[in-house]
Amino acid sequence: MSEVIVDISMSLDGYVTAPGVDAEHGLGVDGEVLHLWAFSDDDTEKELLSRATTRSGAVVMGRKLFDIVDAPNGWSEEIGYGAGHAAEPPCFVVTHSAPETVRLKNRFTIVTDGLESALNLARAAAGDKDVVVMGGGDVCGQVLAAGLADTLSLHIAPVVLGGGTPLFAEGTRVELEPVSTVATPNAIHQTYALR
Amino acid sequence: MSEVIVDISMSLDGYVTAPGVDAEHGLGVDGEVLHLWAFSDDDTEKELLSRATTRSGAVVMGRKLFDIVDAPNGWSEEIGYGAGHAAEPPCFVVTHSAPETVRLKNRFTIVTDGLESALNLARAAAGDKDVVVMGGGDVCGQVLAAGLADTLSLHIAPVVLGGGTPLFAEGTRVELEPVSTVATPNAIHQTYALR
Repeated sequence: MSEVIVDISMSLDGYVTAPGVDAEHGLGVDGEVLHLWAFSDDDTEKELLSRATTRSGAVVMGRKLFDIVDAPNGWSEEIGYGAGHAAEPPCFVVTHSAPETVRLKNRFTIVTDGLESALNLARAAAGDKDVVVMGGGDVCGQVLAAGLADTLSLHIAPVVLGGGTPLFAEGTRVELEPVSTVATPNAIHQTYALR
Repeated sequence: MSEVIVDISMSLDGYVTAPGVDAEHGLGVDGEVLHLWAFSDDDTEKELLSRATTRSGAVVMGRKLFDIVDAPNGWSEEIGYGAGHAAEPPCFVVTHSAPETVRLKNRFTIVTDGLESALNLARAAAGDKDVVVMGGGDVCGQVLAAGLADTLSLHIAPVVLGGGTPLFAEGTRVELEPVSTVATPNAIHQTYALR
């Protein structure tokens, strides 16, 4: 069955980037530790990544993340969500104002009328596959706080960052139901159902 | 070998209490979810708790936690760290000013000259067993930020609290090395070595 999955890497103290995010440091300064698992040669991690990508029928992301992945040194046919798979999922970008140009025109749809609209478009595009909300932290946090996700798939990296972009909004309590836990040297890969 | 272990339960967003801590709500309002694992009938969790308690030669805690556990409805021979075991470890309380009275005089030593002094006393008392820093969040966070712990033993409850007492100090980055992961319905029980 199609699900809306928030799928993101975070530090043990709840940050999805290190401090110091800018155009050159999409994950903040020395934030790469958060995503080591996704570039690992570990068979378990390759399998996790492949399974998640294969289930994805559409991707939702925020504007900051779009600006990074659509930049000239961003995604390509070799690098990016679903890259190398037969079908790369369409991506829906939630933003208040449309960017002037889109480099990867065939992959991105700009959505300026809100998060729920983007999710609806993504659901329609995904068919019976999943909708993956892949970041940034702000969009993921909004989806969680609004109760719009079915599943939270976290990759908890073994680092305390002490600052950066928080995933969870202050003031919002969310009860979670553990579904599965896979531990690797680079992360705890934890799936929760959202009650 | 004797280790200094920070051993504490936290929410997925890094809080060791829910919001609203007061004399009646030591874990904050509806914060009991953080400690469900410690009162569970799950064999794995009983075993984890028993193993940790058996290894403990001394306990270090902060003043707020002391005020809760030494209160009339606090620890007893049946309830408390190590209760029911042959040897209940001595507890060292880090505080700026000594409390006027101590109910459980045989268990608690009040230390007013700082965290390192309390850890040294605890190490001496523990012999070849471990020193467990059990809370509150403030003392645990100080021990972690100062690099005084060998091991971080976390019990990550399946809840986002959105506020409360944070474990990790802002502005301090800590690299961790995963040692073991045990998942139960009530928590991810994760041990890290501190580099």
